[in-house]
Amino acid sequence: MTAPTDTDDELAVTSRRRFLRDGAVIGGAALAGSLAGEAQAADADNLPPNVPEWMKVPGDPMGSQLYGTPSPFEKDVVKNIPKNLKQYISASGRTPLQDLDGIITPNGLFYERHHGGVPTIDPAQHRLMLHGLVDKPMIFTMEDLRRFPSQSRIHFLECSGNPVYTKPYGKTASDLVGLLSCAEWTGVSLKLVLQEAGLQSSAKWIVAEGADAAALTRSIPIEKCLDDAMLVYSQNGERLRPQQGYPLRLLLPGFEGNMNVKWLRRLHVAAEPAYSREETSKYTDLMPDGTAREFTFYMEAKSIITRPSGGQRLTATGFHEITGIAWSGHGKIKRVDISVDDGKSWQEAELQEPILTRALTRFRLPWHWDGEAAVIQSRAIDETGYVQPTLAELLAVRGDSYVYHNNAIWPWRVAASGEVTNANS
Amino acid sequence: MTAPTDTDDELAVTSRRRFLRDGAVIGGAALAGSLAGEAQAADADNLPPNVPEWMKVPGDPMGSQLYGTPSPFEKDVVKNIPKNLKQYISASGRTPLQDLDGIITPNGLFYERHHGGVPTIDPAQHRLMLHGLVDKPMIFTMEDLRRFPSQSRIHFLECSGNPVYTKPYGKTASDLVGLLSCAEWTGVSLKLVLQEAGLQSSAKWIVAEGADAAALTRSIPIEKCLDDAMLVYSQNGERLRPQQGYPLRLLLPGFEGNMNVKWLRRLHVAAEPAYSREETSKYTDLMPDGTAREFTFYMEAKSIITRPSGGQRLTATGFHEITGIAWSGHGKIKRVDISVDDGKSWQEAELQEPILTRALTRFRLPWHWDGEAAVIQSRAIDETGYVQPTLAELLAVRGDSYVYHNNAIWPWRVAASGEVTNANS
Repeated sequence: MTAPTDTDDELAVTSRRRFLRDGAVIGGAALAGSLAGEAQAADADNLPPNVPEWMKVPGDPMGSQLYGTPSPFEKDVVKNIPKNLKQYISASGRTPLQDLDGIITPNGLFYERHHGGVPTIDPAQHRLMLHGLVDKPMIFTMEDLRRFPSQSRIHFLECSGNPVYTKPYGKTASDLVGLLSCAEWTGVSLKLVLQEAGLQSSAKWIVAEGADAAALTRSIPIEKCLDDAMLVYSQNGERLRPQQGYPLRLLLPGFEGNMNVKWLRRLHVAAEPAYSREETSKYTDLMPDGTAREFTFYMEAKSIITRPSGGQRLTATGFHEITGIAWSGHGKIKRVDISVDDGKSWQEAELQEPILTRALTRFRLPWHWDGEAAVIQSRAIDETGYVQPTLAELLAVRGDSYVYHNNAIWPWRVAASGEVTNANS
Repeated sequence: MTAPTDTDDELAVTSRRRFLRDGAVIGGAALAGSLAGEAQAADADNLPPNVPEWMKVPGDPMGSQLYGTPSPFEKDVVKNIPKNLKQYISASGRTPLQDLDGIITPNGLFYERHHGGVPTIDPAQHRLMLHGLVDKPMIFTMEDLRRFPSQSRIHFLECSGNPVYTKPYGKTASDLVGLLSCAEWTGVSLKLVLQEAGLQSSAKWIVAEGADAAALTRSIPIEKCLDDAMLVYSQNGERLRPQQGYPLRLLLPGFEGNMNVKWLRRLHVAAEPAYSREETSKYTDLMPDGTAREFTFYMEAKSIITRPSGGQRLTATGFHEITGIAWSGHGKIKRVDISVDDGKSWQEAELQEPILTRALTRFRLPWHWDGEAAVIQSRAIDETGYVQPTLAELLAVRGDSYVYHNNAIWPWRVAASGEVTNANS
């Protein structure tokens, strides 16, 4: 085994890459002082300085967790449930985005939003009925649906009230946009199931109904149903969690979360939408002229810096990575810009591959914090060329009686103390 | 909203796509008979036939699970722990591959294999020491490592004894190759950390040590450490689970699982390998001529059909999707072939995008089962052109005292009754 020939070249460029080297950084005085000294001393007899207690006794045996759970030291990384929420009316649990990395949301922390509680459904008893403007109405068991050809895709899901425009705004990334998660979904192409039933030419909408106590009902344009819509039974490999629609949900990639009907039990193919509560009284946008924008399906391009973000604290000057997530209901993220000077100038962030359509995209930018107060923010640009707007730009167009579909740029204020807070609050 | 112009064309091709239509398929007699009749009757008054009990009362309120868990109806989908395992010696828990979809393994079902139990480590007390042939020995806290630039990548991990050659072979896909999982990992490039410490030109190996009671130790060639090796702290978005090395593990994409040292506490940069127990007495391959193959790093190309697979049963003739997973330590999967006639002929399976390097790749093939006994199997071809061998081919080269690195094609026998069993047992 020989060392790579470019090792010396790599060492030559090391000095400019040693961005963590300066005194106050990476362990700070400890590293420059006692810890580094300890490491060097330890090297002499080839043993680490301290053998921790947990190496001196056998650990937990195999089988102590047949289904694994997080470390007890991560007990505070849980869903973020707003205080004083009204059960069933405003029931929502947010993903703790500021504590997560990458783009996959673990199932235990996937956001939830429901209107009649979470039903406990026996999959052997669950049925999906497909009827209306089809040649052959059908009822499917879960086993029937498992027989269909399957597909797996990574997509985000986002509630359209994420966040609502109403002050006070939240303190953390989760408070603001935690009604957002991303997973690998497996299920059946809805188009394929519709072909099986024989769609009639008068079919323009499909009204989807959930098997929860709210019988949540939404109308989906037929174009989406014949495009990338899926009947989903698995999420991140395993079956859907109850909170995400077990045993079956609709997935409409890029459409507002509420339309992705959970606990799906009925698809009624129709010529007109149902004008259900959830698409009239709720989830519509009151405009300044008194009219309401309805059937606003697609979630527009958006991004948020998750680290550093509200509630966190920079403990040292020097190198910090700015990282966050970007997404668009219209396709792939093309670019993310970051400003560290309150919007005066912008730099392009690095995007983590693979960049997937209608999925979260992780972005990163190296930043040298000089210890001065700063305002940092990100803006997403998607493959259609759409640019995420500022809150002021959005309010100028939509007015402030608008509730849903807030995709504004959200800046964080970094104080000289290192405390990070919501710059819009 | 208008119907898509190609709806009629789509309807025209529907007949040949109705692969689920024949009598005995998709709900069978029930669909052709009473259930379909019920659906049509229900359509008349626009209501589904039965309102299930769980729609009549509110479901579980928000906050009943701050960290979500699977449905109680999925209680049998847990890690597969061999009976009579010897704690610490053969401790292993397998992923239930035959119950999973897609390529992401949920953290709760990620395989585990350990040699001194699972330590409970306080991340605030955990340290990583980097010493030996470096200019500047360093000790890192977890907070230090979080300060480094991060990266996220999806990779599989596989134990090299998956399965061992020794009979009896297991009954299910999990019994056979369940020491295999795949996740999105986030952490720091090891190369970057080594540059920070200043690697000396005599450095050829890095000896990694875990903070478990076994102090598990493996030697890693320096080329891999300067390529895609990572110091990982997060898995599928959240922090590593204790069973996967919380708070820090080494990730060597494509290398045998045992080398991806968990609970990582020490990296000793050296000119020679350590010849530790795990790379001499264990995890080496005894050849027919009495010599031992050692330092066999890369997991070769491999695949397994997960559905239908051992322990499952086909309940009807007609359409079935054959699906499974393929992977290679050497890069991307280029092709997967499937045979349904005991290896006489092969068809190319469809690969699910995105196809990622050193990650699981999901494959699928439509199959019409005529009700006769059949032997089905898959073989993977990776981007280097390497073709997964049969068990006979492998045994001819390696002999049967070989224990590790078994990447043979594994056929399943489908009986006329529909029962699926291990064709090699």
